[in-house]
Amino acid sequence: MLTPEQIASYERDGYLLLPELFTPAEMAVVRRAASDIYAMNRPEVWRGKDGEFRLAFGVQHYHPVFDLFLRHPRLVEPTRELLGGDVYCHQYKLINKQPFGKLDFPWHQDFANWSKFDGMPEPRALNISVFLDEVNEFNGPVIFIPGAHKEGLITADVLPMEGIDQDGAHTIQGRELERIARANGMVAPKGKAGTAVLFHPYMPHASSPNQSPWSRSTIYLTSNRVDNHITRPTRPEYVAHTDFTPLRAVADDALLTYVEEAAAA
Amino acid sequence: MLTPEQIASYERDGYLLLPELFTPAEMAVVRRAASDIYAMNRPEVWRGKDGEFRLAFGVQHYHPVFDLFLRHPRLVEPTRELLGGDVYCHQYKLINKQPFGKLDFPWHQDFANWSKFDGMPEPRALNISVFLDEVNEFNGPVIFIPGAHKEGLITADVLPMEGIDQDGAHTIQGRELERIARANGMVAPKGKAGTAVLFHPYMPHASSPNQSPWSRSTIYLTSNRVDNHITRPTRPEYVAHTDFTPLRAVADDALLTYVEEAAAA
Repeated sequence: MLTPEQIASYERDGYLLLPELFTPAEMAVVRRAASDIYAMNRPEVWRGKDGEFRLAFGVQHYHPVFDLFLRHPRLVEPTRELLGGDVYCHQYKLINKQPFGKLDFPWHQDFANWSKFDGMPEPRALNISVFLDEVNEFNGPVIFIPGAHKEGLITADVLPMEGIDQDGAHTIQGRELERIARANGMVAPKGKAGTAVLFHPYMPHASSPNQSPWSRSTIYLTSNRVDNHITRPTRPEYVAHTDFTPLRAVADDALLTYVEEAAAA
Repeated sequence: MLTPEQIASYERDGYLLLPELFTPAEMAVVRRAASDIYAMNRPEVWRGKDGEFRLAFGVQHYHPVFDLFLRHPRLVEPTRELLGGDVYCHQYKLINKQPFGKLDFPWHQDFANWSKFDGMPEPRALNISVFLDEVNEFNGPVIFIPGAHKEGLITADVLPMEGIDQDGAHTIQGRELERIARANGMVAPKGKAGTAVLFHPYMPHASSPNQSPWSRSTIYLTSNRVDNHITRPTRPEYVAHTDFTPLRAVADDALLTYVEEAAAA
């Protein structure tokens, strides 16, 4: 459970860093599962022009470790607490920034997509990113503007976003973003593998390419309050889920138990 | 003059950070001169497709402040000391990474260009970058691999570089760069306006786009030992100078005196 200070920090800043929420042993299980995904050929697995893995959507549907991870109490409980009720999984993806890769993301707010393409009524959702690898200043950390979620949806200076996973999504730029960034500053949370970052649907975020030899693989889980479920899905089910069943937490040691049972089988 | 520790640090790491080498008052003079350059239309001033200023070569030839700055004792003396003799200016440019701009640089070593295109015999030169604006982790700082200058010229996994100011220059990538970066780590020197960074011709370096609202304007001065002057210039004179006259230092207060005299005139 989150402390009152952590809840206040999320509400003030629009993000919350939970350093090393998962142990190295747990993250080793998750990284092995990610390696399985990298090798898969499925419609949910998207690659760049060079054939390089970029991201995979809906990973709970074709890997049991990611299904367990989605329901992990250390992810489900803080989300229920911050959103104030039962939640379901709206989107769940694995993104890998390869060493010396080109993948980057311009400034954007996720709620713009969820509203426009999926018909999500209100920003009663949140993202959790979990670092599968250590994130440092050289491998393309996500940059936030603390407190900028209070600006709501930014509609000035918007351009269509280019990029393989953002069909028509919008990019924020220009004077409005400048005003908000000058007023609030920027922060790029870093940490060891197993660290998690929760952030608000209105939080503007961006990231640079990975300039380093160190992979930066990350899970992004979007949880939405059940009574805020989407109403006009236009994207594939694996991009915007339509199963609104509440997430129920598995046991806290589920990842390690899974490996032990798989080894015994 | 540099301390023995600073000289040892440069030789060990291949770069040396000199925090706030110039005062805010001096940098205000240099920034005003840079603003004059941004507005100029000359062959030496290069812009992107959007008309945005990117860089200007040979700025000493058309702005008196940059001519003074080139000869500033706090730049000339450390260079003479590290290179062990008289030096001349091989290249001198102003680069501006605009707020939320696209300008970045892939991994490369400058000596590859100086040798191939200009016929510089040996790496008896060095770069000094001087920060006209504060450099932070969000506005595209230059990344180094400490100690990697000892690798010499990296010839494996080389690709032609794309970019408006690097006609045919090569980009380092792949396993060789990975090996060197894993062995040495990375560093991105930051600091207030007026900070200088000296770095070796063999130092691999790269930088990401400016993701912030804060301009990142930088002077890059390449000094070469006079007895190592170039022998086969193929690029415009403003890119690779052919005047090998040794740089003689002006007075230490030359920038402020210039402004006073200009105001009195």
